[in-house]
Amino acid sequence: MVEQDDARPGVSRRAILGWAGAAAAVGIAGAGGVAAGRASSPATGAPTGASRVYPFTGAHQAGIVTPAQDRLHFATWDLTTTSRDDVIDLLRRWTTAAARLTQGLPAGEFDPGAGPYDSPPDDTGEAADLAASGLTLTFGFGGSLFSTADGTDRFGLAARRPAALADLPHFPGDQLEAARTGGDLAVQACADDPQVAVHAIRNLSRLAFGTAAIRWSQLGYGRTSSTSTAQRTPRNLFGFKDGTANLMAEEPEQAEEHLWVAADDDAAGGASGGGDTAWMTGGSYLVARRIRMTVETWDRSSLREQEQIVGRTKGEGAPLSGGTEHTDPDFAAGGRGGEPLIPIDSHVRLAHPSSNGGARMLRRGYNYTDGSDGLGRLDAGLFFLAYVRDPRTQYTPMQTALARDDAMSEYLRHTGSGLWAVPPGVPEGATMGTPDGAFVGQGLFT
Amino acid sequence: MVEQDDARPGVSRRAILGWAGAAAAVGIAGAGGVAAGRASSPATGAPTGASRVYPFTGAHQAGIVTPAQDRLHFATWDLTTTSRDDVIDLLRRWTTAAARLTQGLPAGEFDPGAGPYDSPPDDTGEAADLAASGLTLTFGFGGSLFSTADGTDRFGLAARRPAALADLPHFPGDQLEAARTGGDLAVQACADDPQVAVHAIRNLSRLAFGTAAIRWSQLGYGRTSSTSTAQRTPRNLFGFKDGTANLMAEEPEQAEEHLWVAADDDAAGGASGGGDTAWMTGGSYLVARRIRMTVETWDRSSLREQEQIVGRTKGEGAPLSGGTEHTDPDFAAGGRGGEPLIPIDSHVRLAHPSSNGGARMLRRGYNYTDGSDGLGRLDAGLFFLAYVRDPRTQYTPMQTALARDDAMSEYLRHTGSGLWAVPPGVPEGATMGTPDGAFVGQGLFT
Repeated sequence: MVEQDDARPGVSRRAILGWAGAAAAVGIAGAGGVAAGRASSPATGAPTGASRVYPFTGAHQAGIVTPAQDRLHFATWDLTTTSRDDVIDLLRRWTTAAARLTQGLPAGEFDPGAGPYDSPPDDTGEAADLAASGLTLTFGFGGSLFSTADGTDRFGLAARRPAALADLPHFPGDQLEAARTGGDLAVQACADDPQVAVHAIRNLSRLAFGTAAIRWSQLGYGRTSSTSTAQRTPRNLFGFKDGTANLMAEEPEQAEEHLWVAADDDAAGGASGGGDTAWMTGGSYLVARRIRMTVETWDRSSLREQEQIVGRTKGEGAPLSGGTEHTDPDFAAGGRGGEPLIPIDSHVRLAHPSSNGGARMLRRGYNYTDGSDGLGRLDAGLFFLAYVRDPRTQYTPMQTALARDDAMSEYLRHTGSGLWAVPPGVPEGATMGTPDGAFVGQGLFT
Repeated sequence: MVEQDDARPGVSRRAILGWAGAAAAVGIAGAGGVAAGRASSPATGAPTGASRVYPFTGAHQAGIVTPAQDRLHFATWDLTTTSRDDVIDLLRRWTTAAARLTQGLPAGEFDPGAGPYDSPPDDTGEAADLAASGLTLTFGFGGSLFSTADGTDRFGLAARRPAALADLPHFPGDQLEAARTGGDLAVQACADDPQVAVHAIRNLSRLAFGTAAIRWSQLGYGRTSSTSTAQRTPRNLFGFKDGTANLMAEEPEQAEEHLWVAADDDAAGGASGGGDTAWMTGGSYLVARRIRMTVETWDRSSLREQEQIVGRTKGEGAPLSGGTEHTDPDFAAGGRGGEPLIPIDSHVRLAHPSSNGGARMLRRGYNYTDGSDGLGRLDAGLFFLAYVRDPRTQYTPMQTALARDDAMSEYLRHTGSGLWAVPPGVPEGATMGTPDGAFVGQGLFT
């Protein structure tokens, strides 16, 4: 990585894109944990935490138990190649770029052999003045990567598809749009600055040109869950606090039980005939659901009705059985007429672990507003993201019950869906950015 | 505004929605300039400036020379009523709500006569824990409010339509979608927290139910212009600094010349036969253009080509004639071959005041990313917002030249458009929230 002159005298490409001297020293290998960042920090109006930097490497991918950032850009890609090597090359390029971007560096490697001024910049530049902003990039593999609907083994991976990556069933009331559902590859970009998250997805997509094309993407703008007890419980677009009972980063034992795939998991056991699925050990499964909320109808329902549907008070977020936000709901508590204080069809009751065999999830969803629908209504709702050790036991039964019985369903419409296997992290100290360097999901291909 | 019991003993509606005691003291009249705010401030990850509060009242509406906030929710409505009184009532409700929301208060007045628990909440609640976050709400009137395309005078306002509010012409290359164009009423909500901006638009829409329906709305997530010399020049999705030559709040004489409608303006003079258009004195005109950028194609063009198209360097943002970002471009400077250093068809040359009879604008646009287009490309670009004293001389000639000659046009597609008359502000000290209280645009109806 040598400083190069280019066609415009005295201006190096590195200077053009705001490369700081410190950045060059970090290099592209083992950037994890190094608090490098772009030289200048945002001026007025920048989010706090702009200088927050999370390590890219580790036993698990970042962006799962990482305290939920405020902004999301989520995207899925379909592979346009038929070559397994192309897929591996893409994952290598993505890994190298992700290791840089998450540390606040431009996406691209500096290539001293290329004519820098007469080739496209190796970073699109719109985040050149912005800090890392807590960016995490989390990669997932969809079922379609392993085999298509007609059973074609596209890349010789069918035997390595985990049983837990079975397609989600059709749930009652689903109104899924193909253009918001599925995808061979998925990346969750979270940051405290939306421009940083969008920049990351855009540069990953640029690096995928010719190998994979974006299938769909979704922006989210206000986390709807806390993943750390240090975070205040946020409100969803129904105006209620959401995710009070979420699995938190401060519960490592709960994470071992509910979040991370273990070596001897059924979840890692191949459904397709004893394939080796050990590559998922230390990984997790990501369920995404785009849930449109009919907010205009909700806004015309009474406060009483809203609280009966949710099962919590709107202000404090306390269960209707009493107490404060973090008081455990008492589902047995009855009112004067003997009927339960927390209604049988309330959301909090049906979604509670006690109604779901003790299953817990790490929720990491975001509010979204995608303009309006042409009928005078906002296209707004919840982009639900949840990480689980096994979706077959931790998501599907709960969503089946919710879709059938939840009083809230009247105000919800599931319009997009996806399930991805999220492999473990790239190990600390791994070398990235070389032709045979480490990459995310490497275990699947070796 | 008396504390009320409701059906749930011991819990007041005000408490339910997080009304602070201080908020009650502010009331709904003359809230401008009072730095009230919701009791709690965001925990981790909140934008800086969350506690920033701008006055709602003043000679001009807020949200124009106000230092550009980081987030936008822009929406337009079509009136579904045929009653002029309904329109006035709506503007009164909106004014009252805006005076509250911009000060960090819930949208609704507290109505002690209503049964609080068995009626819908008078605020949707999702911003209950968030501070004012620099929210401004800026209201505009579209040409269709004054008369429909077939000439119908819907509300007896046709004679008061300013000549400057003539419909924008069709520009070369326009690919406008009806579902992203026009609207009887427009509101620009800007804040440093997107949830606050979305909350404001949603509550205005809720208050419009039965009178007006949302026509379209647009979120933006990174300002693309500075409106104050204290702000760093941001970058657009081409990765270039944008709006370097913008009209700034620190140039009051320039604002008088280029921004605010004066009493004897042609711009205020009725086109439709000598109507009284004095109601626009102190107002401005808002041009909105949704400009999709074909970023995938741009990203594959060389740095040289990108800089030749923009006419500035990508890193520093300096004109290609030399200097630094704020150096005036020297359009006469020639290179070795005699050709101009800043190309004839470059964006900076064609958009520069010197190419446009000295006309300047106050630009206030935002980046947008609305997912992807189903063809593997991001639906991303610039939501261009500009305030001018007279769009006929300050916008239309410039856009005509750009659409015809700008080398950048190859990478741009105008998909939405609108022009609104933005009346002056509600005067300081005005009484709002009463049946005959002051409202934005009142001069048009009196």
